[in-house]
Amino acid sequence: MTATVSPLAPASFPALPTVAGVRLASAAAGLHYHDRLDLMLAALDAGTVMAGVFTRSLCPSAAVDWCRRILASGRGRAIVCNSGNANAFTGAAGAATARRTAGTVADQLGCAADEVFVTSTGIIAEQLDGDRLDAAVIALSEDLAIADGAGWQAAASAILTTDTFPKGAFAAVAGTDAHVVGIAKGSGMIAPDMATMLAFVFSDIGVSPRLLQAALQRSVDASFNRITVDSDTSTSDSVLLAATGRSSAAPIRDPADERYGALQDALDAVTVDLAQQVVRDGEGASKFVTVAVGGAADNEAAALIARSIADSPLVSTALAASDANWGRIVAAVGKAGQKADRDRLAIWIGDEQCAADGTARPGYQEERATRHLQGSEVTIRVDVGVGDGSAEIWTCDLTHGYIDINAGYRS
Amino acid sequence: MTATVSPLAPASFPALPTVAGVRLASAAAGLHYHDRLDLMLAALDAGTVMAGVFTRSLCPSAAVDWCRRILASGRGRAIVCNSGNANAFTGAAGAATARRTAGTVADQLGCAADEVFVTSTGIIAEQLDGDRLDAAVIALSEDLAIADGAGWQAAASAILTTDTFPKGAFAAVAGTDAHVVGIAKGSGMIAPDMATMLAFVFSDIGVSPRLLQAALQRSVDASFNRITVDSDTSTSDSVLLAATGRSSAAPIRDPADERYGALQDALDAVTVDLAQQVVRDGEGASKFVTVAVGGAADNEAAALIARSIADSPLVSTALAASDANWGRIVAAVGKAGQKADRDRLAIWIGDEQCAADGTARPGYQEERATRHLQGSEVTIRVDVGVGDGSAEIWTCDLTHGYIDINAGYRS
Repeated sequence: MTATVSPLAPASFPALPTVAGVRLASAAAGLHYHDRLDLMLAALDAGTVMAGVFTRSLCPSAAVDWCRRILASGRGRAIVCNSGNANAFTGAAGAATARRTAGTVADQLGCAADEVFVTSTGIIAEQLDGDRLDAAVIALSEDLAIADGAGWQAAASAILTTDTFPKGAFAAVAGTDAHVVGIAKGSGMIAPDMATMLAFVFSDIGVSPRLLQAALQRSVDASFNRITVDSDTSTSDSVLLAATGRSSAAPIRDPADERYGALQDALDAVTVDLAQQVVRDGEGASKFVTVAVGGAADNEAAALIARSIADSPLVSTALAASDANWGRIVAAVGKAGQKADRDRLAIWIGDEQCAADGTARPGYQEERATRHLQGSEVTIRVDVGVGDGSAEIWTCDLTHGYIDINAGYRS
Repeated sequence: MTATVSPLAPASFPALPTVAGVRLASAAAGLHYHDRLDLMLAALDAGTVMAGVFTRSLCPSAAVDWCRRILASGRGRAIVCNSGNANAFTGAAGAATARRTAGTVADQLGCAADEVFVTSTGIIAEQLDGDRLDAAVIALSEDLAIADGAGWQAAASAILTTDTFPKGAFAAVAGTDAHVVGIAKGSGMIAPDMATMLAFVFSDIGVSPRLLQAALQRSVDASFNRITVDSDTSTSDSVLLAATGRSSAAPIRDPADERYGALQDALDAVTVDLAQQVVRDGEGASKFVTVAVGGAADNEAAALIARSIADSPLVSTALAASDANWGRIVAAVGKAGQKADRDRLAIWIGDEQCAADGTARPGYQEERATRHLQGSEVTIRVDVGVGDGSAEIWTCDLTHGYIDINAGYRS
């Protein structure tokens, strides 16, 4: 696909720390792509606690079906991920392949198949070559090593599809010697033939399964569920979180433990960073856009209004053109279906207030709004004038690049 | 904006018949555009019954507020429409302008202000010049004449914004000498600075207000509510229907009257034709696309699934590229939130069945699907395998032309 790196990419891949209890290996297995990493295996020490959040799609992939099922135990020993083929919409044969891969990894690591999380991303409705995948994961299990900086970067690269840069982030858990480290892929909320959103997050903290799952759900709601590139939802979107318990800190078992709050903060820092990197790699994106809505009936209403603005093709195309066409923002507020007071509506582009009390603000200087839009970091604020609810959504603009990428023939 | 006519436009504007009791005038009033028709006045004989359906936007224009209020009487004597300025998001001053225009027309025609439907389309959040509009409608009222073919075409042209061709349609009411004649504008479901969807439909049938409103609501649900270009909703969308009762047929007062069914049929023929013309003028459209969903839990669920497919940017861009990438259709079904059986899902592109029983159909010939997509009239059929509900949605593809039109700076 596109060869150049997104103009919104971070300057470099971060130097991610090791996480005790996590070993990694990556390889170019030639499952779909040639001459690039396309397979990652993360082995997790015995006792690792798992949490997961998956796509709401009613047509989930075989891999998502598998992971959702085995997550019930709250335990896991491995995550395997191949890129290039999503094993989605592949019927009973696809489900069998996911099971078989789990079994092969389990044999190598000496654990149970239902402790192996199998994930896939790439083209859909094509059968994944189970023989080749089996051989590749067997070879890969010989290469497992404690994840260092290069190991993390290789893993983050192996899971990419249409992405233009690998995505990683980390944070320390305050008051402990534990860390949270994450990698993610995604560019465009979905392109089921070539993309989807996956994130794998690891920590050496010890924590009970119930607390870990609750923390992950909250974190996803505040991060990956706050981004939109094209309003589409993938059949494979998955976020997995593994906590090995190998740090020296005692395990967290009480939600009132202040280290639980510290874990949440570290987790949120990592997931927000990764989610924003996904937007920064939005297909064709030239601007990173924050849509902040206030004055809504409640936070959920604010999020729906913000999403209506962010998902509007007319708003997105205006942003691409640095056109301060805030009438389109009014229309997007109007169609959101949430309570808003048209005659108290206020809109800002950057620091310039465009609209006040339901019409153009007297003294509004369009050239100031335009200058803000000409930058690559854009903020739109809207107050809908009915309550105290607020929310932020992160998105990007809609450019010819998006059409080029998505109207290009699959190859 | 774009100078060329949509490749999907009909060969010519239809020869619309006169409607007894309807007089028309159109003019180039220079309200926003220069050197083109931008103002239309339709005068309706005393006794005319009115029906209307308006945008669901919670930020409606001043004109929509006005029309919704006066529709309560079920009567009307005029429709006035200006293009270029939508009088939307213009606060109390905008509301006053709509009232004033109604009063001026009423003075000219010798009726009450609340019998004058005022409609506006074009740029939003700019005040409409009430003095100039007043002078223009006074001059226009001198030119009123029974609507002939040229008169209809002028009126259909005066209401356009980014449209590339005027839109008209008509049908006879079987068993009577009455007709239904309609004109519409719209290209892109919305571009609030320059576009919106308006339709004005006229008949010389006599019918009670209650029956007329019910017929229009049903007709809009089966026509204008079945189209999508970019998933956006305008602040000004309006459909008005005037029945003058000047045909020789006796008025329809009983819903069991078979002529009421004939009126519904004629009305549906006109609104479906106009709605499909709006899609054919979709911004940047190169293909007219019918999305037909069957096997859904009910008709409403089918419509929501069809709309999810039609609104998916990834499906729309694949259609533009004649790419038989039906995996994106699976994803759009999955995100619709309606009951669907992934493992019984079937998909057709034209006559070629791509997917059966939840995966690629054995023997599927992609080149046959591709050949169908290379035409300008495309049909996608999906069976979601859970019930008997079905629905059709009409849409167009998403091309670079859409970005060109909507990311172009307002001028």
